[in-house]
Amino acid sequence: MVEIEVRTSARTDFVDVTRQVQAAVGRLQVADGAVVVFNPHTTAGVTVNEGADPDVVRDLAAILERAVPWSGGYRHAEGNAAAHAKAVLTGSSVTLLVRGGQLALGTWQAVWFCDYDGPRERRLWVGALGAAPGVGG
Amino acid sequence: MVEIEVRTSARTDFVDVTRQVQAAVGRLQVADGAVVVFNPHTTAGVTVNEGADPDVVRDLAAILERAVPWSGGYRHAEGNAAAHAKAVLTGSSVTLLVRGGQLALGTWQAVWFCDYDGPRERRLWVGALGAAPGVGG
Amino acid sequence: MVEIEVRTSARTDFVDVTRQVQAAVGRLQVADGAVVVFNPHTTAGVTVNEGADPDVVRDLAAILERAVPWSGGYRHAEGNAAAHAKAVLTGSSVTLLVRGGQLALGTWQAVWFCDYDGPRERRLWVGALGAAPGVGG
Repeated sequence: MVEIEVRTSARTDFVDVTRQVQAAVGRLQVADGAVVVFNPHTTAGVTVNEGADPDVVRDLAAILERAVPWSGGYRHAEGNAAAHAKAVLTGSSVTLLVRGGQLALGTWQAVWFCDYDGPRERRLWVGALGAAPGVGG
Repeated sequence: MVEIEVRTSARTDFVDVTRQVQAAVGRLQVADGAVVVFNPHTTAGVTVNEGADPDVVRDLAAILERAVPWSGGYRHAEGNAAAHAKAVLTGSSVTLLVRGGQLALGTWQAVWFCDYDGPRERRLWVGALGAAPGVGG
Repeated sequence: MVEIEVRTSARTDFVDVTRQVQAAVGRLQVADGAVVVFNPHTTAGVTVNEGADPDVVRDLAAILERAVPWSGGYRHAEGNAAAHAKAVLTGSSVTLLVRGGQLALGTWQAVWFCDYDGPRERRLWVGALGAAPGVGG
């Protein structure tokens, strides 16, 4: 498995990691199959969404903050309960198909690392999932 | 990988694609293993939930609309920021186990394509994930 | 595939199943690869988040209840529409990497079964996903 390093620069920060994930696909020598991109942090997530207009993830940050405000009378003593909840809503991994060594993404899709308790140095793990035996593609 | 075509008929529309996914499992010749059903759109998602009572997905649509209203003073110039956020909350793919060539789903589960910016012609990609070597099942 | 049994003890109840999933990895003889932990219920989900402080999942339960109240004028006649919606927001499965026979989780991560319509006897299915051929790790 390949580790990707991500530096975030705000409490809530979305970083487009599509190129790093594609590089990991190359290093893992996946031709046809799939990879899982796994986020090992509990106050961050990973998702797939539009990469063209940066306003999309800005709106996403605002929508999540409205649904899960940072200050909400939570019990968790570290004070970042909202970040944990946003991480659950986002999800801890994405599974991506690979064809001919390239990530199979829709035209507008990018892979986003989603920090909800930054800024921090973060990591993503990319692991290969094989194609089923006997499958021609 | 196999492509499924989905035609949606409203801005928010949930379409049960379980039969098409099962057909894709057959075409991919997956006996025991898993498939990923991947949605390549940024204003749609895919999920697994009840298929018996259509009121469940109607309620889901209303619940998501309440949490993420279509009009919310968003920045994204295309006007569909809410659809992008709902797509993130829903998720871009589901991973399903396959036993004896059949999707392993719970009694009440169906696979749903979730359009949040329809009506449109949409697609899903189904790819096979192999069972681990040496695993008997 | 290996089945895990989970007994929940409240309507909304989060149960740490990390040890049972690790035991399933052993039974499936996965050395290096991945597993999918699939929830076959439509009013429950599975997620990955902090396992150290039980207040984190208590806060998560409260946050979800605020976003999706149990009583909301829903149509679904069984009265548990909110549980279905929370299940969709949580997700029906998690995919976890395995290295040297051990789940590759972040320091603070645990695997949580999330019941939104308990208490009940519930199940999770764990299936192995192979590493891609020719991948050394």
